[in-house]
Amino acid sequence: MPELRRDPIIGRWVIIAKERGRRPTDFIIAEEPVRGGFCPLCEGNEHTTPHEVLAYGRSHFAPDTPGWSLRVVPNKFPALVIEGDLDKEGEGIYDKMNGIGAHEVIIETPRHDDVLHQMPVAQIKLILMSYRDRMLDLMRDMRFRYIIVFKNFKRAAGASLEHSHSQLIALPIVPYLIQEEINSCLRYFDYKERCVFCDIIRQELATGSRIVCENSNFITICPFAPRSPFEMWLLPKRHLSTYTDLDDSMLDSLAQIFSETMKRLNAAIPNVPYNYMLHTSPLKQLNIEHYHWHIEIMPKTTMVAGFEWGTGFYINTTPPEEAAKFLREVRLLV
Amino acid sequence: MPELRRDPIIGRWVIIAKERGRRPTDFIIAEEPVRGGFCPLCEGNEHTTPHEVLAYGRSHFAPDTPGWSLRVVPNKFPALVIEGDLDKEGEGIYDKMNGIGAHEVIIETPRHDDVLHQMPVAQIKLILMSYRDRMLDLMRDMRFRYIIVFKNFKRAAGASLEHSHSQLIALPIVPYLIQEEINSCLRYFDYKERCVFCDIIRQELATGSRIVCENSNFITICPFAPRSPFEMWLLPKRHLSTYTDLDDSMLDSLAQIFSETMKRLNAAIPNVPYNYMLHTSPLKQLNIEHYHWHIEIMPKTTMVAGFEWGTGFYINTTPPEEAAKFLREVRLLV
Repeated sequence: MPELRRDPIIGRWVIIAKERGRRPTDFIIAEEPVRGGFCPLCEGNEHTTPHEVLAYGRSHFAPDTPGWSLRVVPNKFPALVIEGDLDKEGEGIYDKMNGIGAHEVIIETPRHDDVLHQMPVAQIKLILMSYRDRMLDLMRDMRFRYIIVFKNFKRAAGASLEHSHSQLIALPIVPYLIQEEINSCLRYFDYKERCVFCDIIRQELATGSRIVCENSNFITICPFAPRSPFEMWLLPKRHLSTYTDLDDSMLDSLAQIFSETMKRLNAAIPNVPYNYMLHTSPLKQLNIEHYHWHIEIMPKTTMVAGFEWGTGFYINTTPPEEAAKFLREVRLLV
Repeated sequence: MPELRRDPIIGRWVIIAKERGRRPTDFIIAEEPVRGGFCPLCEGNEHTTPHEVLAYGRSHFAPDTPGWSLRVVPNKFPALVIEGDLDKEGEGIYDKMNGIGAHEVIIETPRHDDVLHQMPVAQIKLILMSYRDRMLDLMRDMRFRYIIVFKNFKRAAGASLEHSHSQLIALPIVPYLIQEEINSCLRYFDYKERCVFCDIIRQELATGSRIVCENSNFITICPFAPRSPFEMWLLPKRHLSTYTDLDDSMLDSLAQIFSETMKRLNAAIPNVPYNYMLHTSPLKQLNIEHYHWHIEIMPKTTMVAGFEWGTGFYINTTPPEEAAKFLREVRLLV
C-alpha cells in the first residue's frame, strides 16, 4: 500500500510508492525510452492492460478487445490504490495516511504513432470528453477530494511510454498548489466580488498582446508571469469553475481551440516535450464563484534547477508578449 | 533591464530576463554541454570574467589574477542587475518591478576537474565561508530582502558550466516558497512555542531511522516527506535561524559533515546530478525564534512532470528510511 505523507513545514504531501527491489544505482536517469518493442497501449494488446474502465467507439460489447477509438484503463503501476480505508494517523509530529486514490491511463488513440498535435479535432474531442466522463464517475467516490488530469509528452517531460496517453489521478486531499490557488482566488473574490481569472481574461482581451488564439467560447494566452518560455493557459471565456459541467457543444469548441493551440506550439518549437495540467475546482466545491477551470500548458524548454527549487521563483528568458506574438503568427501546416 | 512580474493568482514572482535574438527553436534542450574548450572559471582566465568581488588564498593584492583558492565574481549573464531603482508599478491587475538584485558565481576551485565530493574539507570550508561572507556584504544593501545560495551540479540539474561553482542571488522580495515556509513555521511557533525544525531534529534523533550522518553540531537526515528519492536536509542541531551567524568553529564542523554528506551521496549513486539550496532567514528577519536555517540537497533522480507541476504533490518511489539506511551504510572510498 502506498503511503501519503505530509511535510510538517510547508504542508506539502508526497506519495511514497515504493518500487520493490530498486537499488540506488537504478536512479541514474536514462535518456530516451527504447523505441520499438512491445507496446501495451496499442490496439490488439488489450489483454496486457488492467481491465478497461471506459472505451469509446467500439461497435460491439466485448471489453478489452480491439475496435475502440479511445480507452481508459487503471495504471498497471499505480501511485495510489483504489481499495482500502484512508486510516489517517500521526507519527510524532508527522502526519500520514494510506495511499488511497485512483490512477488511470487515458489511451488517446489505438495507433502507436499518432501525436496529439496531428490528430483530427474529432479525436481530440474524445480525449477531452473522456476526462469529463472519468471525472463524473470517480466523483461519486466520497473518499476523493480532487481529481487531476495531466499529460507528459516525451521522455524529457516525464513520459515513460511513447504511445500517446494522458493520466488521471484522484486524490483523498486537495493538493497544496491547488489549495493555494483557490485560497488566493477566494481572497481576490472577497475583496472585489469578481473572479480573478475573469478579470485576467477581460484585461487580456483588451490589450491583446498575450493572446495566442481564441474562439467564441475559449481563449489561449501566454500568462503575464509565465514560469517558462511559451507557457500557455487555455480558459473558458465565460465563468465556469468546474470542468465536468462542459456540455457537448462546449466540448466541440474546446477541441477546436485545444487542437489549434497544440498545433501552434509544435509549429513554433517542433517536437518540443511538454506537460499540460487540467485545473478544475475541488470535488466538494463545485460551481464556485471564485474559481475558473483552465488548462496550463508547460513546454519543457528549461530545467528546474536550484534557484527554482529553493525559491519557487522562476527565471524566464522569453517575455510572454514575444512568445504569444510568435505563436499567433507562426505558419500552421495543414 | 530584467523585469520582475507577479502572478496575480498564486503570488509567485518570475524574472523576465530576456536574452536578445533568441528564436523558439533555440529552446530545444541540448544534452550535455560541450566538454573541453575554453573555461572562463579556470585559473589563468580571470580577465574573462567580470571583476571579482571576493577571493581567498592569494598572497598578493592584485585582483583578477591567478593564485587564488576560491573566487566570487558577478554573473556575466545576470538574471537581475545591481544598478537602478525598484520602480514598483501596476499594469492593470498585474504587478511588476525592475529586476534589481545581485547574481554572483562562486568559483569553488581554481582547477577545472575538481568535484565537490572529492575536495578536501578545508576547501569545502572556504566555499561555505564564501557564502557567509558574500551574504554579510550584500545584506548592507537595503533594497534586498532575501539572499539564496544554490548549486546546480551537472547539466541534468541545470548547470551550464562544468567547472565546479555555486551561485548566489540577492532578491528585492522574499520568494514565495520561503515566505510560505516561514509563515508555516510561525504558525507552528505561535501554537507550540517551539521551532518546528527543532522538534523535527528531536524526533529524528529519537527514532534514528532517517539519520544519514551527524557530528556534534549538525545532522543530515532524509526528511519524512521527501520530494524525490535520496533528498537530504542538513541542519544545525542547536536553534539558529540565520546562516551569517556561523562562526569559524561552526564552519569547520559544517564543512566536515557537508563533505561527508556529499561523499555518501556520490558513493550511493555515483555521479548523480543534484541541486542544493541554502535556506536561511530573510534579511529583515534575523535571529528569529521560529525559523531554522538548513541546506536542502535534491539529487536529480526523477523528473518534474505534469502531476508535480499541477499539484505540488510529489511521487517518490524510495521511502526515506530506506534511502537513509543506504546512505548511512554505504562504503565510503578514502
